[in-house]
Amino acid sequence: MSTRATVAWIVGLGAVVSLAGDACHVASGTTRYTWDGVPVIWKSAIWFPMLVVAGVLALADTGRRLATRFPAARMRGRADVLPAAAAVLALYALTAALHGQSTTVSVILTAAVAIVIWGLWDPSPGAAFGGAIAALAGPLVEIAIVAAGAAEYTHGSDGLAGVAPWLPALYFAAGAVAFRLWDALQRPA
Amino acid sequence: MSTRATVAWIVGLGAVVSLAGDACHVASGTTRYTWDGVPVIWKSAIWFPMLVVAGVLALADTGRRLATRFPAARMRGRADVLPAAAAVLALYALTAALHGQSTTVSVILTAAVAIVIWGLWDPSPGAAFGGAIAALAGPLVEIAIVAAGAAEYTHGSDGLAGVAPWLPALYFAAGAVAFRLWDALQRPA
Amino acid sequence: MSTRATVAWIVGLGAVVSLAGDACHVASGTTRYTWDGVPVIWKSAIWFPMLVVAGVLALADTGRRLATRFPAARMRGRADVLPAAAAVLALYALTAALHGQSTTVSVILTAAVAIVIWGLWDPSPGAAFGGAIAALAGPLVEIAIVAAGAAEYTHGSDGLAGVAPWLPALYFAAGAVAFRLWDALQRPA
Repeated sequence: MSTRATVAWIVGLGAVVSLAGDACHVASGTTRYTWDGVPVIWKSAIWFPMLVVAGVLALADTGRRLATRFPAARMRGRADVLPAAAAVLALYALTAALHGQSTTVSVILTAAVAIVIWGLWDPSPGAAFGGAIAALAGPLVEIAIVAAGAAEYTHGSDGLAGVAPWLPALYFAAGAVAFRLWDALQRPA
Repeated sequence: MSTRATVAWIVGLGAVVSLAGDACHVASGTTRYTWDGVPVIWKSAIWFPMLVVAGVLALADTGRRLATRFPAARMRGRADVLPAAAAVLALYALTAALHGQSTTVSVILTAAVAIVIWGLWDPSPGAAFGGAIAALAGPLVEIAIVAAGAAEYTHGSDGLAGVAPWLPALYFAAGAVAFRLWDALQRPA
Repeated sequence: MSTRATVAWIVGLGAVVSLAGDACHVASGTTRYTWDGVPVIWKSAIWFPMLVVAGVLALADTGRRLATRFPAARMRGRADVLPAAAAVLALYALTAALHGQSTTVSVILTAAVAIVIWGLWDPSPGAAFGGAIAALAGPLVEIAIVAAGAAEYTHGSDGLAGVAPWLPALYFAAGAVAFRLWDALQRPA
């Protein structure tokens, strides 16, 4: 697959997963956008999918560069990419469905499913490293967004410095998949 | 496995999954049977499992005939059949547990899990084609059943011409599995 | 891996899964400890993780001894152990999230996911045998604990002689994984 096609796939997957997942969070009342006058795609302020796509591209590129130092435990190919992206979206939507559950339940369930996704996709230290970067950077950026007043997690889902306590686990799953995305898209099967 | 035994397995799996899944929909108040005087098995009017079994048999036979033109991406064997049927039933029961969630959340979560099931079972265009046939035919038949007054989806789960908006996604998962069922039952491992 | 390290891994996994899962049950109001004066770890009376760890060790040892008579359908290695334990924990937490759903829905969903976990981990009769032992022994022990007045399942989750009707299915998944745990920890990949 050409570099151009690979980037187009990653941008497309990042956009679809972030828009569909964010629509679940807005529809369930988990999150709310609080700035007026920002263009909206589906239920998201336009900057949200753009930030996610930039993050996914950066992680996929990092994973490609570090692949020899952090080899994959399972070689994934093109046929595995759609199911893996769908698994991340399913976990994203599940966090919306868990709105109203106790923090203990939602954090442990989200974390456990995130580890299952990492394990089915590529149970390697490298993919866990990609997940850890995302689990750190993603919530930090969202904490800054909430602090800036652009969006908010609603009461009961804001226990981690204004964002949801299960957010690092969700980002871990997304980051683990993103870290091997570039290489998986190069392999036919 | 003989043709007779294969058909018996497919009929059995279709009957168990449809009866157990439908029991979840009735128990959760997602659906309701509205004709009196029809024999009931567990919580279903007798014609419901019969329709599902006929559909699964037709799809499994179609998949067998088209297997050379639409080859499988992953060769599945007998040991994979029970877990695959259980995955479809789990999604079926999940749609019942999601009763009361917003349509956005239930549709996106059901669709994402359906793609995961397709991807773990056989991420091939052929299995997706089988899923697409089911995603079209199943809801159309159910829309006709609702229009005829034999059953109904309750308020809030009836947004797709009287049936649930997540119904095509559930049928997609079932159809993708059914499409490779015959061949999987022929392979020992 | 040395015997000492294997035992340490099994004890650690059993302790983490039982404590985190039990915390979900207590947080969701599914269960309640009713004896005062017993030391508590996280949200559990100290005897609960100890019983679970003893059970997991016994099953892992049984699986190791019976491995030649009941061979695995899929050879699992060290990289599969964390995701498998996480899958059991995810199902454990899911049963907490299903608190309040009808018994039909929670039993069928838990049972279907349990079969999926067995099927992804090792769809062999041996692993099913390990699961069946756990599905029988675990609930019997918990029924005795409830009868002794040390803990209780709350109203609506106590339909199986005082314990939850989905409890055998949850134990089945845990037992199927535990039965192959020893051997999986010996295999590098």
